[in-house]
Order: sequence, then C-alpha cells, then structure tokens
Amino acid sequence: MTTFDTDMPPMTTSIGRSTADDIWVQGYDLAGELMGEVDFGSVFYLLITGRLPTAGEARIFNAVLVALADHGLTPTALAARLTYTGAPDAIQGAIAAGVLGAGSVFLGVFEDAGRVLTAAGPTPDTGEEELERMAAEIIEDHRGRGARIPGLGHPFHKGGDPRTARLLALAREHDLLGPHTRLMLRVQERATSPSGRQLALNAGGACGALLSDLAIDTAVLRGVAVVSRAAGVVGHLAEEARAPMGRTLWHMAERAATYEARR
Amino acid sequence: MTTFDTDMPPMTTSIGRSTADDIWVQGYDLAGELMGEVDFGSVFYLLITGRLPTAGEARIFNAVLVALADHGLTPTALAARLTYTGAPDAIQGAIAAGVLGAGSVFLGVFEDAGRVLTAAGPTPDTGEEELERMAAEIIEDHRGRGARIPGLGHPFHKGGDPRTARLLALAREHDLLGPHTRLMLRVQERATSPSGRQLALNAGGACGALLSDLAIDTAVLRGVAVVSRAAGVVGHLAEEARAPMGRTLWHMAERAATYEARR
Amino acid sequence: MTTFDTDMPPMTTSIGRSTADDIWVQGYDLAGELMGEVDFGSVFYLLITGRLPTAGEARIFNAVLVALADHGLTPTALAARLTYTGAPDAIQGAIAAGVLGAGSVFLGVFEDAGRVLTAAGPTPDTGEEELERMAAEIIEDHRGRGARIPGLGHPFHKGGDPRTARLLALAREHDLLGPHTRLMLRVQERATSPSGRQLALNAGGACGALLSDLAIDTAVLRGVAVVSRAAGVVGHLAEEARAPMGRTLWHMAERAATYEARR
Amino acid sequence: MTTFDTDMPPMTTSIGRSTADDIWVQGYDLAGELMGEVDFGSVFYLLITGRLPTAGEARIFNAVLVALADHGLTPTALAARLTYTGAPDAIQGAIAAGVLGAGSVFLGVFEDAGRVLTAAGPTPDTGEEELERMAAEIIEDHRGRGARIPGLGHPFHKGGDPRTARLLALAREHDLLGPHTRLMLRVQERATSPSGRQLALNAGGACGALLSDLAIDTAVLRGVAVVSRAAGVVGHLAEEARAPMGRTLWHMAERAATYEARR
Repeated sequence: MTTFDTDMPPMTTSIGRSTADDIWVQGYDLAGELMGEVDFGSVFYLLITGRLPTAGEARIFNAVLVALADHGLTPTALAARLTYTGAPDAIQGAIAAGVLGAGSVFLGVFEDAGRVLTAAGPTPDTGEEELERMAAEIIEDHRGRGARIPGLGHPFHKGGDPRTARLLALAREHDLLGPHTRLMLRVQERATSPSGRQLALNAGGACGALLSDLAIDTAVLRGVAVVSRAAGVVGHLAEEARAPMGRTLWHMAERAATYEARR
Repeated sequence: MTTFDTDMPPMTTSIGRSTADDIWVQGYDLAGELMGEVDFGSVFYLLITGRLPTAGEARIFNAVLVALADHGLTPTALAARLTYTGAPDAIQGAIAAGVLGAGSVFLGVFEDAGRVLTAAGPTPDTGEEELERMAAEIIEDHRGRGARIPGLGHPFHKGGDPRTARLLALAREHDLLGPHTRLMLRVQERATSPSGRQLALNAGGACGALLSDLAIDTAVLRGVAVVSRAAGVVGHLAEEARAPMGRTLWHMAERAATYEARR
Repeated sequence: MTTFDTDMPPMTTSIGRSTADDIWVQGYDLAGELMGEVDFGSVFYLLITGRLPTAGEARIFNAVLVALADHGLTPTALAARLTYTGAPDAIQGAIAAGVLGAGSVFLGVFEDAGRVLTAAGPTPDTGEEELERMAAEIIEDHRGRGARIPGLGHPFHKGGDPRTARLLALAREHDLLGPHTRLMLRVQERATSPSGRQLALNAGGACGALLSDLAIDTAVLRGVAVVSRAAGVVGHLAEEARAPMGRTLWHMAERAATYEARR
Repeated sequence: MTTFDTDMPPMTTSIGRSTADDIWVQGYDLAGELMGEVDFGSVFYLLITGRLPTAGEARIFNAVLVALADHGLTPTALAARLTYTGAPDAIQGAIAAGVLGAGSVFLGVFEDAGRVLTAAGPTPDTGEEELERMAAEIIEDHRGRGARIPGLGHPFHKGGDPRTARLLALAREHDLLGPHTRLMLRVQERATSPSGRQLALNAGGACGALLSDLAIDTAVLRGVAVVSRAAGVVGHLAEEARAPMGRTLWHMAERAATYEARR
C-alpha cells in the first residue's frame, strides 16, 4: 500500500475509461455508439471539445483537416522522409519528426490568427459596428508594432488561396460563418500591406477563424493542424517506403553545399 | 545555377503539387473535389494508398481510426501531458512525445499481426483448405519459437475486446471480410495459450488484419495507429490545458519513489 | 544529370567533411586532433562556436553541462520513462520525448535570461556606471510589463541554488566572469519580488549569463541545456531498463484520477 | 490525502535527489563534487553506470562521444535543419527530429555489434582458444542466416575508418582493450564478405565493442550515440540560425522531384 499526503490539485479526466466489457470515450460507448457510426474527424472533435459536432460542424471540421493535410514536398515532409531513411524500424519517430516542424513559421499562423480573434472576444450577438471597431483595433495594434496580421497574404497563391474560398462557402452553406470568421473578414477587407496592396485571406487564417467559431480552445488549435499534417506525413512515408528519395536528398545536399572551414 | 551529376535514383512523388491557382492531392483538386466532399479519414486513406476508398472501405477505415484513438490515461497520454507541463508553448512537441510511445509493446501488435498475415500471402481466391494450412503453419511456427501470436489475448478485456466484435460485424455488413481477416480468424480458432486456454482476437489483431485487407502497406500500418492516437493525445492536451495533472503526477512520482544511492 | 536554376541562397557549411581517409570537424582532423585529445564537452563547444575553448572556458562550459544534466524524477524524466514503456525497441524516441519538455516553463528561463542580457549588449569595455544603468532599465522594463525577470528566484532552493555559487566561483577563478554575468549580478542585487523580498540568482540565470559570456548564440542556448538533459534522460532510461517504474506510474495515475464524464 | 493499494512493483531510483540546500546525482554532491571537478562525458558515464570512470575509461568514453558527434550533412542533420525552418521558436523539437533518425540503419549497427558480442559473453578470463571459438560461432551463425555481421565494412572509408584505429590505440594505451573488443577483432580477422574480401572494422563496431567493455548496458548503447549526435545536431542548428539552408533544400527538392499522378 502506498499512502501519501499531497497538497497538489486532484487529477480528474473525462476522456477515457474502460471496464472489462466496455470502453468509454467522453461518455460514449466506443464500440456501440462511435465505431461505424461517427467518422474519425467527428470523434477527434469529440475528444477535444467533449461533444459530438452537428452535421454542419462535422463537415467544416473535416474540411479544415482535409485542407491542411498536405502541401507536397514541404520541409516537414522532407524531415520525415530523411528520418525514415535512418530509422525505418520506428515509423513513429519519422512521423514525430514530421510534425515537430509545425511551429511558428508554418502552422503557427493558424494559432496566431485564432489568438488575435479570440482576444478581441466577438460573440454571436456582437453587432456590425462593434465588429468594425474590433477590426480597426486589430489593424492599428499590428501597424503600431510593425507586425504582420496573421492569416493575411500568401507567398505563392497571390490571387487567393483556393482553400479559403471553399471553406467560407461551406460555412455559409451551413450558416456557420460565426463571429470570429466575420471579424477576420472585416480585418482582411480593411488591412493593406505596407505597400498599400490588399492582402488575401490565406488558408491558415480561415482555418484559425472557423475553428475558433467551432469552439476549439486556442491552446490546442495548432494540435488540430498537427493531426491533419500527421496524416499527410504518413502518406509521404508510404511513398518513401515504396520509392525512396531520402538518400538522393542527402547526396544532393552534400554536393550542393560548399564547405568553408572557419578554422 | 547549381549543376551536378548524380548517380542517385531520381526522385518522384505523386502526393502533392501546387500551382498559383490550385492545390492537388494524389491527382485530386483539393478545394474542388476533396474539401467538403470527402471526410478526413477517407482523405487519409487516399494519401496512403493513392485512391479514395469505397463507401464500405471508408466506414471500416474510419472505425479502425476511431477504435484506436484513446484508451484513457495510458503511458502515451501521460508522456504527452508531462511534456506539455514543461513546454506549453510548443504543443507539437507534446503530441510528438505522445506518439513516440507507439512502439513494439503497445501499437506494435497491430503491425506484427499485419506482417504475419501478409507474409502468409492469402488472396481473395485462396480456398478454405489453403487458409486452414496457412493458419496451421503460423501456429506451428510461433509455437516452435516459443513466441506469442500477435493479435491474440488481452490482459484486460478477457471476455473479448468489444471493439473486435464491432469491427468484424462492420466488415461482414459490407462484405469486406477479406482473406487476411479470414486467416486471422482461423488462427484464433485453432490457437491456444500455453495453458490450453482459447485466446480472444484483440483489437490490434482485428485492426491489423482488416487494414491488410484494405491494402494498407505493412510498412505504414503502425502509422495509421499513430495518426489515430495523435487525435487522442490532442484530446488529453486540451484537458491538460484546462485542468492540469502534470505537476500532480510529478510530485506523486517523487513521493512514491524510494531513493537508493548506489554509491 | 540534374541541372536546375535556383534563385535560392547558396548552401555553405563549416561543420563536417569526409574524404576516403579522413574526417574533419570544424577544420580539425577528427581522429588525429580531437579523439583522445579533447573532452566531449569541449568538442560540443567547438561544434557550436567554430573554435576550441580555452582551458578555463572548457571547465566552465563542462560545469554548466554537468549542472543541468539531472534533477531527479522531473516531468521530462517521467515522460522519457513512460515512452520507453511502450517502445523499448526505439530508445531514440524515449530520449526525444524526454527533451521535448525542455520548453518555456523549465529550461526556457535559461534562454530568456540570455536574451535579456544580450539585448542590453554589455561588452568587456562596459564600465560600472553603464552596467548599473542597463540593470535599472531591465528591472524597470519588467516591472512595467508586470513580468518576472528570468533567472531570479527558485521555488525550492530558496536560500540560493548551490549550483549558482559554484558556477560563479569557477568563473572568478578563471577570470571569466564577463559582462553578461556582471550585468546579471547587478540585476539580481537590485531586483526584488513584488512583496519586496530579494531574489536569489538561480542556476538557469547563472548558466544563461555565463554561456552568453562564452559567446554561445542565444538561438541555441536552449540547445546546450537539451544536450545536457539528454544525458540525464539516458541515465533514467538505463535505470528504467533495469528497474522499471513506467507501469507503476501508469496504474498509479489511473487509480488516483477521478473520472468525470462531461456528457 | 491520496491513499491507494497497489499491487504494482515499488518505484526506486538512485539517480537524483534534492534537498533545499543540496542536489545529489548518483550519490555525489552535484555542486561540491562534480561541477568543475569532473568533465561532462564522465558525468554522463556516472549517470548511466552509477560510478565515475577511471582516467583511462573517461578518455575512451569521451573519445567515443567525440567520434560519433558529427559526420557532416547527414540525413539526421538535414532533418533537424528542415524542422528548424518551420519551428525556430522550439529548438528542442529540431534536436529531437535530428536524433529520431538514429535508428536501425545508421546508429543501429553500434547497438547490434554490442548485442552480438554481449550475447557471446566473453569475460576478462576468457582464453584465446575460447575467443576463437566464439568468433567462429558468430561468423557461422550470420553466414547461416545470410546476415551481415554488424560492425564490419564501410560504404565510404574502404581502407579502414580512421576513427577505429584511433580508438583501438587509445584502448591499448590504457590497457582497456577488453574481452568484447578482443572478440570483435577476432571476428573481423576471420570474417570475409560474400565475395571473399576482408572487411574493415568500422567505427560503429569499434564503439559498440569498447562500450560493452566499459560495462554500458546494451539497452542504452544507442542512447550514448544519441547524446553524442545531439551535440552535432546543435552545431548544425547554430549554423542554420546564422546561415540557413533549409529553404534552399526545400526548393531544391521540389524542383528535382518529378510529379507522377497515380490517379
């Protein structure tokens, strides 16, 4: 028997529980109520928020997961492939390497957009004038600090990211274009680049806004993107197992780099 | 201009490609054909196999992902929570820590079952007698090496894992109980524990067999479980952000452990 | 032959190079000049800075690495052990899980102290009065933002961290108590907690200041701590392989936690 | 108060312990006996084995750590750099990505060599004839399975790895060429490639043998290489922060790869 006093906060959880006959996830009977009944994206939503999504919410949440799953031979996909070259026996490590690049530069915009919008605090009852005021404040605050507004502009899809238009259309179709996304759109309409050009709403900004409307906590916003990207990474590793490029990348890098001793 | 000779194999990919206006995933227009049209689980299947699943395949693949997403306060969930305690600013690291425990002891059974079945090589045309022979060989081979057959037995759900029954029912409903799963069931019927007891087919064994029937390459079988488990881990981290247990675990471990200097 | 134009910056490296007969590290012959001649800590310094440390610098750099290697059953050690429970076949994953907790809460203070001191920009020529002014500015800036000054105070070693005194004594002995550390000490002398109490310089603050004096780039300051902590993690894993506590931790957590369904 | 019965094994640790005034590592006073007195490599040895190395053991252990720290722009260094490109704010993640490639293909040889030698079980008292017999058995066993003997041959340093000669010379100098290394040398003398060519002892084989003689548990053999390689990775990241090549690698890969849709 281990007995000890603890002045630490008690530990509580609502996620999972098993008995000899049943497994429960967020209060649902896993085998009886979820498997075969609810798609994986919706169960992911349940795991994070504690409730199943409505049909419209499920469609948008799935669309966000689909939108972020892959973008070709990105640094994260390459890092995963190069890790697999050395450790094909431990694919969990290659997947981990792939998601560890989901930091401030790439998937961070996603989280940053959600934070800015959530901090402004719009609700379903926020009127148009008030949204206008919030948008002006966000723009002014970023301009004052010389900071880029997260979610606007794209280095590549300058005419507008095709994922953004699709996500907004889906949200409108289900009447789920909520206060965070409406605020984001107002910011986009009014903000301009330093050179005066209007900036498109990129997929990261749209996803961050829509997930905030879906009540995803900003603390795990980046986590949604990480799971989505993990699926893309496994796709790359399936291809790497079949048609490897890791060693070619390695030798290409060695030959392309110039060696300059500092000694 | 960088020019170099390379005797390395050429690099080819079929996964992702972008133009200024479009993003393609495995030959599909991401925004036009996948987002809002196909659930995330099915796109994950597309990323790995290069084709979209049929309706029945999608239901089974999603059910497998749902089955493996969470099992409560497991070592992997705890590792993720303890990592978040130290680095809440980099949630991708806590998720990575969570999936790195998906090794030989827990999710490995999954992959091992798939390997054993795939190595036997049953096809849709394999007759009953031939399956019988394959099953006998698998049992004999493991008995000869004193090895446990992967996929059989469970330390906790001794009466049968509720997930297994559900998965098999789904496969039968869609007429997708293929040769790998039929072989697995024959092995289960004939195998006994060293003490002569019959062993139940566990969820790992059922998932490994069904995914092999769904043509998932054994090289990435564990990767499917990792993505599923990543979703569960994000669920735990959302809870950890709201109601932390990391520090309590830490102090509980420090107090429960006995210090025994070796010097 | 692969030929392509690239408008990307060229790739240069000074770290490693191999010929059929020799291996070079930062311009040194690895087998002839480093192995057996220089300790590992000094080679680590060489890898980061491009030059070998002097005898005094090597002693301080090694002392910093030794100081941060272990602190008992910390969350990072526990995360590594729990990961090993699931994946003993891939120890690199358990080590990775262990270092992923080296984020803002624990080892981050280290980096934050370095950043604050480096931003102030003291040099060997900075006079006492100027240091005084820099210290006052740092204190005022943090007080204005209601922020804690990194490197001061310790939740446990309230009388002063024993590592701090030792590090400072070593630096004085070798006449290597440079401008960043002198500035840190001035900040410590003048700063008080909100309740007016004087705060001790903790080991993170001392290490961050000393490493800045040793010309370690702030971008990799946390990396020094990570390598040190990786050694401690391998120590824990060697013990875990011999006398496991992972499963006990798991069951302890399951029993101590209260399950509260949200449904 | 948390009270619970547990039938789990008790948790014991000998590694670290703190009081308000002191910090203990493996029974040593960290500040008083280790910092400034013992180099980092030797403390790493203490953390793993529970005792400080002798002067000769410390020199060899440090030489092994130095030997494995870097090998230029390897897949692991590239994976770390590409991860840093996306997440410069979380350098612990880039280091983790770098070490996750330390699997079966690269650093695994190290561990495999140690396992083969340890399984044979030579001791300081094992005579020459007995060593001869063990070597013959190892060779026969691998030939019978058509397997490569770990530690022999190198794709690049065909004339002999310069690190091997240096390590053996150091071991002879300190009279620490123990039974595992003597067995490894006998295996090397007698083994030939399938084409009848003699194979050189590579650095992985030499390190695995020497560390086994130094009583490092095979369970953490790969962990020694991981810590060493982590230092090399931080060297690469310091360079990447100063002179990045991540984006160049990315664009190089995108341009060099051929896109072949499977649809």
